[in-house]
Amino acid sequence: MKRNVLIIGAGGVAQVVAHKCAQNNDILGDLHIASRTKSKCDAILQTVADKGAMKQDGVFTSHAVDAMDSAAVAALIREVGAQIVINVGTAFVNMTVLDACIETGAAYIDTAIHEDPEKICETPPWYGNYEWKKRALCAEKGVTAILGAGFDPGVVNAFARYAIDTYMDEVTSIDIVDINAGSHGKYFATNFDPEINFREFTGTVYYWEDQKWKETSMFASGREWDLPVVGKQKAYQSGHDEVHSLAANYPQADVRFWMGFGDHYINVFTVLQNLGLLSEKPVTTAEGLEVVPLKLVKACLPDPSSLAPDYTGNTCIGDLVKGTKDGAPVEVFVYNVADHAEAYAEVGSQGISYTAGVPAVAAAMLVASGEWDAKTMKNIEELDPKPFFTILDDIGLPTRVEFNGKDTAWNA
Amino acid sequence: MKRNVLIIGAGGVAQVVAHKCAQNNDILGDLHIASRTKSKCDAILQTVADKGAMKQDGVFTSHAVDAMDSAAVAALIREVGAQIVINVGTAFVNMTVLDACIETGAAYIDTAIHEDPEKICETPPWYGNYEWKKRALCAEKGVTAILGAGFDPGVVNAFARYAIDTYMDEVTSIDIVDINAGSHGKYFATNFDPEINFREFTGTVYYWEDQKWKETSMFASGREWDLPVVGKQKAYQSGHDEVHSLAANYPQADVRFWMGFGDHYINVFTVLQNLGLLSEKPVTTAEGLEVVPLKLVKACLPDPSSLAPDYTGNTCIGDLVKGTKDGAPVEVFVYNVADHAEAYAEVGSQGISYTAGVPAVAAAMLVASGEWDAKTMKNIEELDPKPFFTILDDIGLPTRVEFNGKDTAWNA
Repeated sequence: MKRNVLIIGAGGVAQVVAHKCAQNNDILGDLHIASRTKSKCDAILQTVADKGAMKQDGVFTSHAVDAMDSAAVAALIREVGAQIVINVGTAFVNMTVLDACIETGAAYIDTAIHEDPEKICETPPWYGNYEWKKRALCAEKGVTAILGAGFDPGVVNAFARYAIDTYMDEVTSIDIVDINAGSHGKYFATNFDPEINFREFTGTVYYWEDQKWKETSMFASGREWDLPVVGKQKAYQSGHDEVHSLAANYPQADVRFWMGFGDHYINVFTVLQNLGLLSEKPVTTAEGLEVVPLKLVKACLPDPSSLAPDYTGNTCIGDLVKGTKDGAPVEVFVYNVADHAEAYAEVGSQGISYTAGVPAVAAAMLVASGEWDAKTMKNIEELDPKPFFTILDDIGLPTRVEFNGKDTAWNA
Repeated sequence: MKRNVLIIGAGGVAQVVAHKCAQNNDILGDLHIASRTKSKCDAILQTVADKGAMKQDGVFTSHAVDAMDSAAVAALIREVGAQIVINVGTAFVNMTVLDACIETGAAYIDTAIHEDPEKICETPPWYGNYEWKKRALCAEKGVTAILGAGFDPGVVNAFARYAIDTYMDEVTSIDIVDINAGSHGKYFATNFDPEINFREFTGTVYYWEDQKWKETSMFASGREWDLPVVGKQKAYQSGHDEVHSLAANYPQADVRFWMGFGDHYINVFTVLQNLGLLSEKPVTTAEGLEVVPLKLVKACLPDPSSLAPDYTGNTCIGDLVKGTKDGAPVEVFVYNVADHAEAYAEVGSQGISYTAGVPAVAAAMLVASGEWDAKTMKNIEELDPKPFFTILDDIGLPTRVEFNGKDTAWNA
């Protein structure tokens, strides 16, 4: 049993995490939120107060912390007595926050893989470059670290585990499909931090086939999918965190990730990419100013959290898992559909932030209850998916299954 | 009779001007070139030496000057004894260089309208915002100032004057068409300073019709033209300097400017424009750095002068002038075709720089000879076009005329 949560970060996902923690503070205990800019935390706490989100009276306090400073994070963990840290800050701070958890014994939960601002798309498996190097240390110290507990990575890893355990003897392929069929009404915007969003697509696309890593490039491999609610949508193979852990846990299966993109997104991306405007390497202007193009593009784009009020439509994210059962081929599609407008009504965020933030809180609740308090480092597919789905059903992200022509709740 | 030329600027057009001045130094006398960065002037002088461009032995010397500092420019004019200044620096320095000429009595020649870096697309007529305010002073002091002596503005103004004087009693419309059918082989590049290039297209498009200013926006008004050598090409109404002086000198005529653009250019422009990346207003990055987006875009694009070695194809720039002669409608197309590769072979520059720079030197030669030494401020259509065409025929930009189904040299 662990209690008292420290949320690191104050962006769109942090807002969802804050609301969901508040809604479950009977289980999670005292709540704290910290980021470099305390006023951003205060703005989130104001929305929590405005919605009356706290399930019961309790602590929810904001703090300023530089999450790149591991000692400062450790000091804050000790100061507030947090036993669970949900890291939804930028992907650049994972390792310093994880180190602070290892130092203090707090459980660590994040939603995306660590990135080095100087590097794009490192050698696969990506987790091997940073997080997994700390796995033995976590085990030795009995520290729980749950990696990639958002939707993708996160829930989709649990979808894969569940499909394999429930429907097949052997798995042959896992295709994760992420379709956002919502509309934000802007000329162009990314649904989360543009810097992280574009970095996903500017490097090599790695996927796992025939028991080895293969490479393609962004938008080179696409196909149309026909999915529940969102219908026919084009998606393209992209690099994504969960491919790297699922390939390690299910090396016998092909593992691919497909992200939906409209032609307009691809056009804007292609123009920016070809002009060098998505580069993370600084260029020098005629006036002698050193500028990282990607950081300027980020500054020019809408803040992802600003999209929420006008966002309409649905996301559909799921796993098409194929294998064999009693020697015969079998396939199942495990998925969730989320609604942007419902997310905004509930927590003041759009659906992309909602799907990323809610599962991290479900994971925290399972750590709090002990069910997922693994005392070592785990990717989501290494944990029992059923209590996870049960909580997600309750708190806003129900799991559904298409199997043998029928579409039902996972536990129907 | 005036002699000794000071060239301000060291970009692609300045290189053309330097070579053409060198090729005519028997008429122009001592030559000097100055810019903020003296090494760029030295690089140009090296190409002049490499090509053996000097017609006769003589002076050609480089200098450093901040052209925004009028007193420094005046001091340099006096120091080198220049009686003619060809200003082909950025459009932001026109007024300080003009002031230096008024102060010292040197003749002033430029190729583009003054711009304030803080403003885009001011009220028409554009010359009225800056240059024409100094017209009375030029007349009073007997200072020759020839505005817009490039190709467009410049030669196209002379085309209009010539067409009207030669072929009609009354003019009813002047449509200037600028087609670059060349290929630079890059994903995207502008043919001159990206900052100035994009500024031309981000503001209101002004044109003169029915004896008043009308407004449209970029790419809103387009039509296909079928022109000599370059064939069928789509061009769009754009704002351009010469519309503003021709409308003042021929208020009875409609005056429009059409710039050729391919779909790819329009797509890239539209993406950048819609994302705010062509803005001249600084934005602040998440890291607190103030950046003018347009200056970063400029830094990411190819240097226009770097395009020259691989540039192939032609430009066609001309005036379709309509009017009446003896009561009957009449129309004439006066134009020039230039070849990118020939320009590079001769002066090491691409055709766009060539067409902009050569006419300024022709104007300087006419000031030197006295024919255009007007002792006041003039736009090109206020000067006799025939000696201008005669020199241009000789130095690389021959004028041709399509009239009554025949295509001939202007003086055939």
